[in-house]
Amino acid sequence: MSIVDRLAAARGERPADLILRGGRLVNVISGEIYPTDIVIHDRHVVALGDGYSGEQEVDLLGKFVAPGLIDAHVHIESSLVTPPEFARAVLPHGVTTVITDPHEIANVLGLEGMRYMLERAKHGQLNMFVMASSCVPATDMETSGARLEAEDLAPLANHPWVLGLAELMNYPGVALGDEGMLDKIALFGDKVLDGHAPAMSGKLLNAYVAAGVESEHECTTVAEAREKLRLGLTVFIREGSTTRNLKPLLPLVRPENHSAICFCTDDRIPADLIDQGSIDYMIRVAIAAGVDPMMAIRMGSYNTARHFRLKKYGALAPGKYADLVVVSDLRDFVPEQVYRGGVLVARAGEMIGERPPARRLDLRSTVNIRASSLDFRVKAVAEMIRVIGTIPHQVVTEHRLERAKIVDGFAVSDVERDILKFAMIERHRASGNLGLGFVKGFGLRRGAIAGTVAHDHHNLAVIGADDESMKTAVAAIVEMGGGLVIADGDSVLARMPLPVAGLMSELPIEEARRQYDQMIQAARALGNQMSDPFIVMSFMGLEVIPKLKLTDLGLVDVETFKLVELFV
Amino acid sequence: MSIVDRLAAARGERPADLILRGGRLVNVISGEIYPTDIVIHDRHVVALGDGYSGEQEVDLLGKFVAPGLIDAHVHIESSLVTPPEFARAVLPHGVTTVITDPHEIANVLGLEGMRYMLERAKHGQLNMFVMASSCVPATDMETSGARLEAEDLAPLANHPWVLGLAELMNYPGVALGDEGMLDKIALFGDKVLDGHAPAMSGKLLNAYVAAGVESEHECTTVAEAREKLRLGLTVFIREGSTTRNLKPLLPLVRPENHSAICFCTDDRIPADLIDQGSIDYMIRVAIAAGVDPMMAIRMGSYNTARHFRLKKYGALAPGKYADLVVVSDLRDFVPEQVYRGGVLVARAGEMIGERPPARRLDLRSTVNIRASSLDFRVKAVAEMIRVIGTIPHQVVTEHRLERAKIVDGFAVSDVERDILKFAMIERHRASGNLGLGFVKGFGLRRGAIAGTVAHDHHNLAVIGADDESMKTAVAAIVEMGGGLVIADGDSVLARMPLPVAGLMSELPIEEARRQYDQMIQAARALGNQMSDPFIVMSFMGLEVIPKLKLTDLGLVDVETFKLVELFV
Repeated sequence: MSIVDRLAAARGERPADLILRGGRLVNVISGEIYPTDIVIHDRHVVALGDGYSGEQEVDLLGKFVAPGLIDAHVHIESSLVTPPEFARAVLPHGVTTVITDPHEIANVLGLEGMRYMLERAKHGQLNMFVMASSCVPATDMETSGARLEAEDLAPLANHPWVLGLAELMNYPGVALGDEGMLDKIALFGDKVLDGHAPAMSGKLLNAYVAAGVESEHECTTVAEAREKLRLGLTVFIREGSTTRNLKPLLPLVRPENHSAICFCTDDRIPADLIDQGSIDYMIRVAIAAGVDPMMAIRMGSYNTARHFRLKKYGALAPGKYADLVVVSDLRDFVPEQVYRGGVLVARAGEMIGERPPARRLDLRSTVNIRASSLDFRVKAVAEMIRVIGTIPHQVVTEHRLERAKIVDGFAVSDVERDILKFAMIERHRASGNLGLGFVKGFGLRRGAIAGTVAHDHHNLAVIGADDESMKTAVAAIVEMGGGLVIADGDSVLARMPLPVAGLMSELPIEEARRQYDQMIQAARALGNQMSDPFIVMSFMGLEVIPKLKLTDLGLVDVETFKLVELFV
Repeated sequence: MSIVDRLAAARGERPADLILRGGRLVNVISGEIYPTDIVIHDRHVVALGDGYSGEQEVDLLGKFVAPGLIDAHVHIESSLVTPPEFARAVLPHGVTTVITDPHEIANVLGLEGMRYMLERAKHGQLNMFVMASSCVPATDMETSGARLEAEDLAPLANHPWVLGLAELMNYPGVALGDEGMLDKIALFGDKVLDGHAPAMSGKLLNAYVAAGVESEHECTTVAEAREKLRLGLTVFIREGSTTRNLKPLLPLVRPENHSAICFCTDDRIPADLIDQGSIDYMIRVAIAAGVDPMMAIRMGSYNTARHFRLKKYGALAPGKYADLVVVSDLRDFVPEQVYRGGVLVARAGEMIGERPPARRLDLRSTVNIRASSLDFRVKAVAEMIRVIGTIPHQVVTEHRLERAKIVDGFAVSDVERDILKFAMIERHRASGNLGLGFVKGFGLRRGAIAGTVAHDHHNLAVIGADDESMKTAVAAIVEMGGGLVIADGDSVLARMPLPVAGLMSELPIEEARRQYDQMIQAARALGNQMSDPFIVMSFMGLEVIPKLKLTDLGLVDVETFKLVELFV
C-alpha cells in the first residue's frame, strides 16, 4: 500500500478498499451538507463522488457522515486508565484524535512518563498527539517527581507526534518574561503554544499573548472569552467533569468567530466518559442550545485540526485520513458508526473487536515512602489554625482561621466541626517531607481517605478523622504502589490500585469505573457527602489555585504565593 | 530589542515604540470592527487596549486599521522588475507580504535564480516567502535553462522563507503518480503544496488532490471552483493582468465557505500594479460587488496566512508583526497609510523614503545564442502548414491548417493574411536549437517583435514579417543580454533591456512601465492591434496550454502532447 495505490484507487483504476455509499457528507470545508459517495483506500479518503467500485461497499441509507471528532486538550491520566483504555472509552463516542498534555505523569516520571504515554498509544486505534508539558513542577513550593527545563524538552521538539508546548500554566512567569519560560517558548516557537491563564486580563494578558501563546481553555465567562479571542487566542471551550464551561460560553459562538473556537474536555472521569461521552456530548449540548450543527461539528473537528496544523485530520476530502462518524440525526448527533483510518472501530456505542494484547512497558516504582516512620502528630503552639475550606463544585478554596481542637498538647481532627487533619506526603524521592494541615468540608465521621492523585505534584494526600486510619490508608497505598484507599482504624475498607505512576489503573475502563464508584460509596458510608471526594482532595494540594493549599512543604497562601505557618 | 522588551511594553512598564490611537480595528480573528488603540514595539503588535504610552503616538481619527494584505500566489518576474522594485509597487497598495513562486527565473537559472530572488528580497520592506518551483522544465518538449528534480530542491525544504512546493503544474503527472512528482511531494510533505490544474475535474481531480495538493488558483467558473473547494482545495481567486477571474468567481464566496478562499494576482504587469493595484484592488472589487468587507479583507490577509501556516502574519493581535493598512472608508478600501513591522512605509499611495542601495548580485549571462549563424528560412515540403491561431484575451490557441505562402521554394510570412513567421531560439546553452512555425493574429505589416520572456522555458521568441527584421531583433537582444526588441529591416525601433535572466529590468518600476508602454506603441505602429503583444507572444511557446504551441524543438500539438511537423 502506498500513495501510488491510493492514486490508482482515486482514478478509479483499481477497486478501493471501501466505499461508503448513500450518505450525506458534512463537508466542514465548504460548509455544505450533500449526498456523495466516500471512497476509502489505504487508510485515506481518496475520492468523493460517483462511479467508483470497492472491495467492500456499505450503504449508509441517507445517514450523515462527519469527520472524526478531535479533543483539543485532554489529560488522559484523569480518566484513571491508560491510553488504550481511554481510547476504548472515547472512540465509540466518535473521538478519533486527541491532543493530550501528559502533564500528570510528567510531574511524576518526567520524560519517562511522557514516553510511556507515547508508547502506550503506539499502534493503537486512537490518534494521540502530545503537547510537551511546560510547567513541571508547577512552582518551587512543592516537591514533584521531575523537573523539566527547556533543555530537557528539546528531544521532544521534533518528535512527529509532538505538536508543541502544552498549557503555559505559569502565566505570571510568561507575562513577566521569566527566562526559563521564554527558553521553552523559543524551543517550540515554530510549533503550537497552548495557554492556561484563568481570569487573566488587560495588560498582563496582552503580554502573555505577545509571548506567542495561541490558545486558552480556562475561560469561564463570555466576557473573558471575548477579550481573549479578540487578542488572537483560539478559545478552547471546555467541558470537563468538574469544570463545566460549555453552556456559559455558548453565547460567545457566532458564525463570524466560530473558526477561532474549539472544543476540549481537559479532565473527565471514567463515569462521564462512558455515560455522557466526550466531544460528541459537547456537540449535542451546543446543538440543543441552538448552535448550527455545521458550526458545532467544526468546533469539534475541523477548527481543532486547523489550529494544530494537522492537515490530514478534521475533514473528509481526498488525501485526509478516513476518520469519520456516522449519525442518523444531525441534531441528536449520536455516533452510530465510527471509522478510524477507514476501519470500522465502533458501532452503536460499543467497540468492535477484542482488546489488543498490551505492549510490555516497565515503569519504575513511584511511591517511595517509609510508611513506618510517619508521624502525623501536630504539636499545638497556638490556639488558632489556618483551615482549608472547600467550596462545593469549585477548586478554589477558602482561607479560614479556626480554633484548633487540642488534646494532650496536640491539634487533632474535630469531626463535630468537620475540621479534619490533612497530610501531604512526598512520595517521589523518599525525602520524608510531610506537609500537615486541616481541611473543612469532607465530613468524615471516622476513618480516612488517601490517594496518590494530587495535582500537580501527585504526592500522597490523606485526610482523616484519626491518625491510625490515616496511617493504615497510607500503608495500603504504599503496598499497592499507588492508588486510592479508604481505611478505618486498622482496616482497609476499599482500595483502587493505580500502579501506573500512582495515577492510572491497568484495568479496563468499565472495571476502573466500578472500582471508583465503590470508593465513593465507601467514603459516603464514613460521612462524606461530596459527589466525588477524591477529585476534591486531588485539588487541595494545587498551590497555583487560590486561596489556601497544602503541599509536602506545608501550607501555601496562594494570594501571597508564600508558604505560611499552620498556627496563627 | 527582544521578546523581553516587547513583554515589558505589553505590560505597560516601558513606553512602546508607537501607539496608533483612535482607529477602528478590523479584527479578522473575531470578525468584529471596534475602536481600540494598537500598541507596537520592536516590529510587533504587543497590545490592544487602553492605558499605554508610546515614544511616538499617532491619532488615526476614527479610520479603519486592517492587517497588511497578503498575495497568496504571485510570480514577481511578471512585473518585469526585481523584488525591491516590485515591493515599491505593491507596498503603497497595502500588500506587505507575498508568497511567490520564482518559477520564471528558475527555468532560466535553476537554484541560482531562486537564490537571486531570495537575496534581492533580503532586508527589504516586503515580506517575501517562496514556494519551491516544482515543474522545471514544464515538459521534455522544450529546452530550459535548468532541470530541478527532488534532490535539487532538497536544500530549500528547510529554508526559513520557503513554505512549500509551488504550483504542481504537471497535474496529469501528479494524478497519474509520476515518480518524480511524488518524490517532490514527499520532500515537502509536511509543508504547503500549491496546485495548478486548470479545468481538471472528476476522478483525475480526486487523484490530484489525494496526492496532497492543497490549493488551486486556476479556477475560471463557479462550478469548477465549487468542485475543487468541496474536495478540500483552498481556492485562490486570481486577478492577474490577463487572467481575470475575480468577478466570475465572486458568486462562490459565502460566509460559510470564505475561510477556504484567498486572493492572489499570479501575474501582473507594471502598469496594472501601479494604476490598479494588487490585492487591494481585489478587495475593492469584491466589496463593490456586495461581498461583506470583513470577508473580503480576510480573503486578502488572514485566510492566506492561515493557509500557509504563517502564524505571525495576517491579523493584528499581540505577538503578530505590525503590518497594517489604514483606510478611511471600508467600502472604498484605499490604503492611506501602510505600516510594515511597525514602520510607516507608504502614505497616500506613495512610498516613503529613498530607494535603498541595491545589494550587489552577479548573475551569469543567460542569452547564449550565436546570432550570426541563425537561419530562419523554411524550405517548403508541402503546401499546407499548421498555424498557431491566437484568440483574443486567452492563452489557449487554435490549431489551424492554412495554405503556405511559398516564395522561391521557401515558406514565408504572409502579411496580407496575417500569417507571420514565428521562431523560438534556444538561448540557455547555445545548442543551436531553433523551432520554426507560423502564427496568426499579430497583424504586423512589417518588422519584427522579439523577447526573452516566453513561458516557461523563456527561450527567445521572435515573430516577424521578414527574416531580416527578425535577425535584427535577435541580434539586439543578444547584445542587451536579454529583453524585448522591435525592429524593422536593419533598424532597431525600440528596446527594453531585461538583463536579469532576460526577464527583469533593473530600472525603477515607473521607468520600466514607461519603456514597456513605448514597446507596445512601437508594435502598434507596425500594425499590431493587441493591447499587449509581448504577453501574447510569451504564451505562444507554453506547450502545456492547448492547442498548438512552438518550442525550440518545434511545434507541439498539446492535445496529443506530441511534437508535430510544420507541413501537413
